[in-house]
Amino acid sequence: MRPSGRPVNQMRKVSFERNFSKHAEGSCLVKFGDTHVLCTASLEEKTPPWLRNSGKGWVTAEYGMLPRATGDRMKREAASGKQGGRTQEIQRLIGRSLRAVVDLTALGEKQITIDCDVIQADGGTRTASVTGGWIALYDCLKWMETRSMIKLDKVLKDHVAAISCGIFANQPVIDLDYLEDSAAETDANFVMTGAGGIVEVQGTAEGKPFSREEFLQLLSLAEAGTQELVAMQKAAIGG
Amino acid sequence: MRPSGRPVNQMRKVSFERNFSKHAEGSCLVKFGDTHVLCTASLEEKTPPWLRNSGKGWVTAEYGMLPRATGDRMKREAASGKQGGRTQEIQRLIGRSLRAVVDLTALGEKQITIDCDVIQADGGTRTASVTGGWIALYDCLKWMETRSMIKLDKVLKDHVAAISCGIFANQPVIDLDYLEDSAAETDANFVMTGAGGIVEVQGTAEGKPFSREEFLQLLSLAEAGTQELVAMQKAAIGG
Amino acid sequence: MRPSGRPVNQMRKVSFERNFSKHAEGSCLVKFGDTHVLCTASLEEKTPPWLRNSGKGWVTAEYGMLPRATGDRMKREAASGKQGGRTQEIQRLIGRSLRAVVDLTALGEKQITIDCDVIQADGGTRTASVTGGWIALYDCLKWMETRSMIKLDKVLKDHVAAISCGIFANQPVIDLDYLEDSAAETDANFVMTGAGGIVEVQGTAEGKPFSREEFLQLLSLAEAGTQELVAMQKAAIGG
Amino acid sequence: MRPSGRPVNQMRKVSFERNFSKHAEGSCLVKFGDTHVLCTASLEEKTPPWLRNSGKGWVTAEYGMLPRATGDRMKREAASGKQGGRTQEIQRLIGRSLRAVVDLTALGEKQITIDCDVIQADGGTRTASVTGGWIALYDCLKWMETRSMIKLDKVLKDHVAAISCGIFANQPVIDLDYLEDSAAETDANFVMTGAGGIVEVQGTAEGKPFSREEFLQLLSLAEAGTQELVAMQKAAIGG
Amino acid sequence: MRPSGRPVNQMRKVSFERNFSKHAEGSCLVKFGDTHVLCTASLEEKTPPWLRNSGKGWVTAEYGMLPRATGDRMKREAASGKQGGRTQEIQRLIGRSLRAVVDLTALGEKQITIDCDVIQADGGTRTASVTGGWIALYDCLKWMETRSMIKLDKVLKDHVAAISCGIFANQPVIDLDYLEDSAAETDANFVMTGAGGIVEVQGTAEGKPFSREEFLQLLSLAEAGTQELVAMQKAAIGG
Amino acid sequence: MRPSGRPVNQMRKVSFERNFSKHAEGSCLVKFGDTHVLCTASLEEKTPPWLRNSGKGWVTAEYGMLPRATGDRMKREAASGKQGGRTQEIQRLIGRSLRAVVDLTALGEKQITIDCDVIQADGGTRTASVTGGWIALYDCLKWMETRSMIKLDKVLKDHVAAISCGIFANQPVIDLDYLEDSAAETDANFVMTGAGGIVEVQGTAEGKPFSREEFLQLLSLAEAGTQELVAMQKAAIGG
Repeated sequence: MRPSGRPVNQMRKVSFERNFSKHAEGSCLVKFGDTHVLCTASLEEKTPPWLRNSGKGWVTAEYGMLPRATGDRMKREAASGKQGGRTQEIQRLIGRSLRAVVDLTALGEKQITIDCDVIQADGGTRTASVTGGWIALYDCLKWMETRSMIKLDKVLKDHVAAISCGIFANQPVIDLDYLEDSAAETDANFVMTGAGGIVEVQGTAEGKPFSREEFLQLLSLAEAGTQELVAMQKAAIGG
Repeated sequence: MRPSGRPVNQMRKVSFERNFSKHAEGSCLVKFGDTHVLCTASLEEKTPPWLRNSGKGWVTAEYGMLPRATGDRMKREAASGKQGGRTQEIQRLIGRSLRAVVDLTALGEKQITIDCDVIQADGGTRTASVTGGWIALYDCLKWMETRSMIKLDKVLKDHVAAISCGIFANQPVIDLDYLEDSAAETDANFVMTGAGGIVEVQGTAEGKPFSREEFLQLLSLAEAGTQELVAMQKAAIGG
Repeated sequence: MRPSGRPVNQMRKVSFERNFSKHAEGSCLVKFGDTHVLCTASLEEKTPPWLRNSGKGWVTAEYGMLPRATGDRMKREAASGKQGGRTQEIQRLIGRSLRAVVDLTALGEKQITIDCDVIQADGGTRTASVTGGWIALYDCLKWMETRSMIKLDKVLKDHVAAISCGIFANQPVIDLDYLEDSAAETDANFVMTGAGGIVEVQGTAEGKPFSREEFLQLLSLAEAGTQELVAMQKAAIGG
Repeated sequence: MRPSGRPVNQMRKVSFERNFSKHAEGSCLVKFGDTHVLCTASLEEKTPPWLRNSGKGWVTAEYGMLPRATGDRMKREAASGKQGGRTQEIQRLIGRSLRAVVDLTALGEKQITIDCDVIQADGGTRTASVTGGWIALYDCLKWMETRSMIKLDKVLKDHVAAISCGIFANQPVIDLDYLEDSAAETDANFVMTGAGGIVEVQGTAEGKPFSREEFLQLLSLAEAGTQELVAMQKAAIGG
Repeated sequence: MRPSGRPVNQMRKVSFERNFSKHAEGSCLVKFGDTHVLCTASLEEKTPPWLRNSGKGWVTAEYGMLPRATGDRMKREAASGKQGGRTQEIQRLIGRSLRAVVDLTALGEKQITIDCDVIQADGGTRTASVTGGWIALYDCLKWMETRSMIKLDKVLKDHVAAISCGIFANQPVIDLDYLEDSAAETDANFVMTGAGGIVEVQGTAEGKPFSREEFLQLLSLAEAGTQELVAMQKAAIGG
Repeated sequence: MRPSGRPVNQMRKVSFERNFSKHAEGSCLVKFGDTHVLCTASLEEKTPPWLRNSGKGWVTAEYGMLPRATGDRMKREAASGKQGGRTQEIQRLIGRSLRAVVDLTALGEKQITIDCDVIQADGGTRTASVTGGWIALYDCLKWMETRSMIKLDKVLKDHVAAISCGIFANQPVIDLDYLEDSAAETDANFVMTGAGGIVEVQGTAEGKPFSREEFLQLLSLAEAGTQELVAMQKAAIGG
């Protein structure tokens, strides 16, 4: 029995609130249950140095957590003077995941930065960030298309969404909340495209190692879950 | 004529959304028009080193801005490795303002940290932070009273609220938004208590110096404005 | 009765020692009693990035304290790896104050940095810095005029001087020394021009809030005090 | 055809040079072809703060690269003042991987730090670090057993080894060197135990997403490869 | 011919202004010609961690330069966030030099920090710092003796003084000023005691290597020069 | 009697292993007994900013220690966020020493960075770094000559080698290992050229001051020792 009472293959309630931010070219407040992440997409005309004069653009991500997004207050990273290893790991993951569905040449020499700031955390902040970040990216590209800067369907090749799965109380479950995450024996994150391709897989045994069979069960849960998320993304932008 | 069409003595629409955050002992999303600040109050059992064994507690504040809270994306302070001078100036102001209405001895050896994170900025983020921070502090103290840790009315001596005033297009106006703030000749921030006492005054000539008379006009606007804000605070907590 | 025996409206003995430094284009050792600050003005041909090709120059300030300028040795900021919030607050104030009397367009694309280093501290280091910094700036501009780089009277529009006032033992007093500053209920700093305009006002209630009437008394003291300082600046440069 | 001419399922020549370092309690120079990593294990009597008085110990890892371990010289992290995101990601992976086979309670309140310093890099530095790090850890625990501090077989529950696999030129290959790694469409790292359990899986699509079938082929290669590595570890310590 | 017209074995005019600082237990403004260094000695009751409960005290030094002590303004180390290599090298030298004449056991578990801040630089700042630092240290120990905390003659075993010598225009000269220092082929610093013992020797060929004979000539100049400095120290404290 | 049993004028066994690193233009693993330092020379086409368009190149050095190169593990400098004073002092010494035998104009607008990384430490790491660094530099210049970028004999004017000497148990000895270094009364480092010129001398009294006579004995030992080292360098490159 999961603490939340959810069936093993049921995700939390997911919602996307587009245009949450007045200033950003694209923005989305994404909620996976009590995990709330504000994703904004900011367009800049300049690319990173290593792409100057390459004709290619760049999509990158930054991730942060408000100090009291969590049960206990965490030290503010700006005050401690550096971003921790976990922060850097997550923001690299978000950037890679979104770039996997972007044609950087079709984007041209511009940079889009996706900021994912966790307003409230209850497990799964990185998967919510990827999934909501895609909406912010879509809206930014839409904004650019409106101004004849790009063709949206040339730049954005597919959807991308992410979900966590894990082994909790000896059974594979999807979309772990904080309580489950803290107690899970295995924790895995999957990033998949609308077409069902895998972009990123990260599985970690927190306690005892897991088997190939267990891993495949997690993968199956994730395949179904990311398809659901993609359908919700489509609904969100389709309106 | 103000860009917003407001009369010179009219503040923007102000609202307080209490209990915005699931985890914090007190929290409030405060809005002054398009300026939105999330204020959370976090209770810690330990005081700063210089108060150990003094019997006194501490109230402090930290301030941050999401990178795309503003019209152009700003560099994330956690990524640049330090908090800028403006950030430090503001968080020191918030902390001093709130401490002005707290009896630190009645609080006892505890620390309350007020985090003020700007979700969206349109001028006046520091005054919204003080005003909303007071609500978060109140709710945190209420939470403590419920647990018999303190007597709320012994610890919290009064309301405190803040408002900006400035000279825009040669006339004194209250509660400047970003457009006005950028063009104002003089910009002043006032922090005042429910009883009408002044806690903090900061006035800066952005262009030409201002006169004693002009300053007194700003002060009068601020006195009326902070009284309005205090009334709204009372309504917000009274419900 | 003030610890120093001074009447409430009497400043400490103030002196300016021009050309204290062999290398700087302008320099002044300013003393407000036992508070001694070395102000140097350094001319650089380049402006900050945001003013490139604007035709405008910049005046900025940096502030520091020798570790044993104070009663107890303070940690050296260079060793601790960052400038504290107080340092940044003060150097921003000094820069704003001096820019208020400079025509940056008449200066042209150059930068003048005013370094204010506290050799010995006894309260009022920021007001001494502004007041002495003006002398260093004047001498630097004079140096430039001698070399036909600028017209001094086009660039420097007025004098600027600063003084602290506060409520000590229930009465308003001017130019607080360290003993008074530590015990004052209210502490305010005023920056004013030779023409009597207000450039900056900062008032803080250290203990209980202050009233409009008290604040106006402090302002009156400051108006008289800054006029005295301007007269002393005139004498210093007139010789 | 692989650049190195190796069959798709052939790893590079692997060697372990134990006791490479005079001072460390355990040490091993591990080579995966031209990738050379010095792993040292350092025993400290104190644990991290969050384990004080818990009766449990800790195993952690740090990772570094000599500036000219790579084809182009990289900036020294000590000189740039921080460890990059990639460094932190790798050292967290190494630590988690080794802890997966250690009984921290049986270790007792001690900390073992595994330093993995890349002397020469040619792809696969993290997998060499995990595999060689296990040898250094084993030797450190042996050193402790000799001094009756622990029972080695109570503390170290199994072997752990890691290997990279990827899709290069449309076919799954094992143990990518730098040339393959730069051109691979998919890159995955697997950490597995002697008993065949999976400790960590990380797969990333560098170009187009990969399918479940491709991922399973990589997994099969990794299972065989890590078993080979475990056999080599056994030979290395069995002497 | 030296730029200053001094004979090869003539030092610049040296002076010591004791009790320059109101707050420090010992202080001295030392001048070697246009090189002016403020040395303060600060007594703290606590020793560094590695001496806790050893019965021994510590003498350490910190060195800094005001940004415009030099011909061109240098970046403030507090602003750049770290002390440069040259700063660290010099402060380590000053600390070692002074400790060479102190009995740390007779001092007891206390720390004295000698801050050497260069107000104006014209070559030889480190040698002025050592020489003037000794005076500040003496006065601090005197202050302690007055309070019956130590016996001065048990703690301070001898004088210590420092001088630079170099090969300028092919001839050995003493006490190089900035012009000479910039052009010298060889630059050496000597720290010697009142009894004539050598505490520290540092010689560097700036251009071509120097010979044993040349080095011995520099040493002879230094022996005479440090004896002169010791005589001046005696006169300064004898008054 | 020395702990190692060596006669006072006998260095430890010295060896050079050239081409230790696959990637660097020049590299050498130098061993002075149990002190092992990997020196690599990296060629970059760009010079430091202050040499742009000067026609001159630059040779610089960086120094590091693996955390467990020493008896007790030292904190990794990359993790602590800065290079300590000792590290900076040593890398400045290595750079100066190598530049003393290089004609920077003949090198042209290029930079060669010598990285000296201590794999294992047993005293004398800086002298091993200079001596082995020269080999790496030689091989890098050889690599450039092969590509017709420079004339080796125009750029590299002489050999340079370094050795430590000290007073241990009241007698002058050469090439102190860690045990001797920790107990020595005086510790000196000498850097000398093949022609016998002195490039750098650093002598420090660790306990009581030393005399001119003692210093000359150390210098004599060093002269003989560096000549031996130069002979070994010649053998190493001559093969």
